[in-house]
Amino acid sequence: MKLIYSNDHRDHAGAKEMRYDQMIPMSESPERMDMIMTALAEAGFSDAVAPNAHGLEVAHQVHDPAFVSFLERCYPLWEAEFGPGGFATAYTFGMRGMDQQPNPSVHSMLSCYTFDVCVPFVQGTWQAIRSAKDVALTGVDLIHQGERSVFSLCRPPGHHASRDMAGGYCYLNNAAIAAQAHLNTGAKRVAILDIDYHHGNGTQSIFYDRSDVLFASLHCRPEDEYPFLMGYAREVGKGPGRGYNVNLPMPRGTDYGVWGPALAIALARIHSYAPDVLVVSLGVDSFAGDPVGGFELQSPDFVAIGQAIAQAGLPTHFVMEGGYAMEALGTNVANVISGYSKI
Amino acid sequence: MKLIYSNDHRDHAGAKEMRYDQMIPMSESPERMDMIMTALAEAGFSDAVAPNAHGLEVAHQVHDPAFVSFLERCYPLWEAEFGPGGFATAYTFGMRGMDQQPNPSVHSMLSCYTFDVCVPFVQGTWQAIRSAKDVALTGVDLIHQGERSVFSLCRPPGHHASRDMAGGYCYLNNAAIAAQAHLNTGAKRVAILDIDYHHGNGTQSIFYDRSDVLFASLHCRPEDEYPFLMGYAREVGKGPGRGYNVNLPMPRGTDYGVWGPALAIALARIHSYAPDVLVVSLGVDSFAGDPVGGFELQSPDFVAIGQAIAQAGLPTHFVMEGGYAMEALGTNVANVISGYSKI
Ligand SMILES: [Zn+2]
Ligand SMILES: [Zn+2]
Repeated sequence: MKLIYSNDHRDHAGAKEMRYDQMIPMSESPERMDMIMTALAEAGFSDAVAPNAHGLEVAHQVHDPAFVSFLERCYPLWEAEFGPGGFATAYTFGMRGMDQQPNPSVHSMLSCYTFDVCVPFVQGTWQAIRSAKDVALTGVDLIHQGERSVFSLCRPPGHHASRDMAGGYCYLNNAAIAAQAHLNTGAKRVAILDIDYHHGNGTQSIFYDRSDVLFASLHCRPEDEYPFLMGYAREVGKGPGRGYNVNLPMPRGTDYGVWGPALAIALARIHSYAPDVLVVSLGVDSFAGDPVGGFELQSPDFVAIGQAIAQAGLPTHFVMEGGYAMEALGTNVANVISGYSKI
Repeated sequence: MKLIYSNDHRDHAGAKEMRYDQMIPMSESPERMDMIMTALAEAGFSDAVAPNAHGLEVAHQVHDPAFVSFLERCYPLWEAEFGPGGFATAYTFGMRGMDQQPNPSVHSMLSCYTFDVCVPFVQGTWQAIRSAKDVALTGVDLIHQGERSVFSLCRPPGHHASRDMAGGYCYLNNAAIAAQAHLNTGAKRVAILDIDYHHGNGTQSIFYDRSDVLFASLHCRPEDEYPFLMGYAREVGKGPGRGYNVNLPMPRGTDYGVWGPALAIALARIHSYAPDVLVVSLGVDSFAGDPVGGFELQSPDFVAIGQAIAQAGLPTHFVMEGGYAMEALGTNVANVISGYSKI
């Protein structure tokens, strides 16, 4: 399987995030990608290709162009006000119930275009965002050229980013951009299977009223876990999208005995949808040892996940999302790819 | 002038707030009230009375009862999960564009019912919130009993709190509760003059579609200052409330040469409205030395402010809001009350 990877994410680093009563180093670090690339190589997957540069056209199809522009300009505007060395972050956010539009100040844009304190901007953030988008789009190109499966090793991740809001380590929604690009290059229907521990609220909201993208997500239920206000089973889509959003929320502590059958349900829905391409939002923070997770999946379970996805028999585009247990992250990701490839 | 004051706010203390890249002690401290009470006494104002206990009925007229219940239950729920000693705060917030309701988890409620990282909850927070509401309502009782002017020394402040969201050190909106109670006890029209440095977004939103409460605010413009997304002059009210919301935003660096004429505009509008009672959201963070402010008002200017308010010739209910320059806070507040009383 071809791996699309670039080092352009490396300078998106060094910021902190608020977690309750303290500021902590970001769990979402450049070293995550080293763990993953090393484990993939050890498992025999070393066919890495660099991404090709793409424009912002597809990003503008699934995101508000003003939001994308904010992502590019945020850190420079911040540095112009505060000087170099720190990071930009919002501490207050848009409020419900009043019509709120950002003005040109960076504070106003941070308040409007982010929804939490887990999307800091440093000098290298925009380069990483843009590169992750190219990593996703190059995967689309390869599938279009006939590859049966590819793995876009995106960093930062994307599934929490909505049409016009960044949050939860996510800026542009790489999986949504990939799905849109698959449609642009000829696919009639695209399914997104999101197996990250957290609900892919951004991806859901982007395609919520559309039937050309089916979104199916396995995640920890909002009663127990971030983002706390979305991810319910009752969220089934609206308008033409009704029936094309499938949430499978599970309680904290869920193990593969429950998670595996939920995956089977999602894959059965995807089978009946008969997509031309399957995009997998591949997060492995469902692993038992994940510091920001709360599920009990074990490393061998990820082999079974890969096998189950392969049995869907679809052109498959893996897009990297979360996973923060540094000691097992690489193994868990490699296990999914191995399980997928061995069948 | 009678001062309504209680020490029940004291245990709302010890939490930190996020300001950009660090956690700092809350600027909104119990010691603020000591500075104010001491300076008032030195200026000859020492007729302090304790608040009478009131129920939550009026609070439920201007706030969502589920939100009020959250304010009461937040810290106990947090402590049940994390143990004593810390403070509860949200790090992620409700997102636009999806119908989001809180579930019973404290994290979900924090995400839904707060809009920034400046409303921590500690053991003593609810007692302080409830007491500040009683301090406001006791002021209403005294005006109803014939007092020409009273000063409700509320802490925590209230003007950033909306119908169902806390933020910016504010939990219940004391001034809005006071205005509603004045209406309940016979006033036909109430004007709220908000002279805090920050826009009173909560008060505005609560009365935005009503004509029985006129809201007029002098504040730093949203291009320059928190809350960044509201406080524009174009926000004039809607429906029956159209024309009853008056915003006078001014740029960072504004001094009394500009601020004073803006006050005259607000008072002229209040005069034409002919309210039965004037509620003053009294923040003094427009002072030049305020650590969270950006205006250039000097201490003697606050005497002039009090004089101008007195010239309106209305029953006047002062309600304490912000002000964080510890060395001058008391003097500035006492200057307003002296200026008002001497005319
Ligand atoms: Zn995740
Ligand atoms: Zn203020």
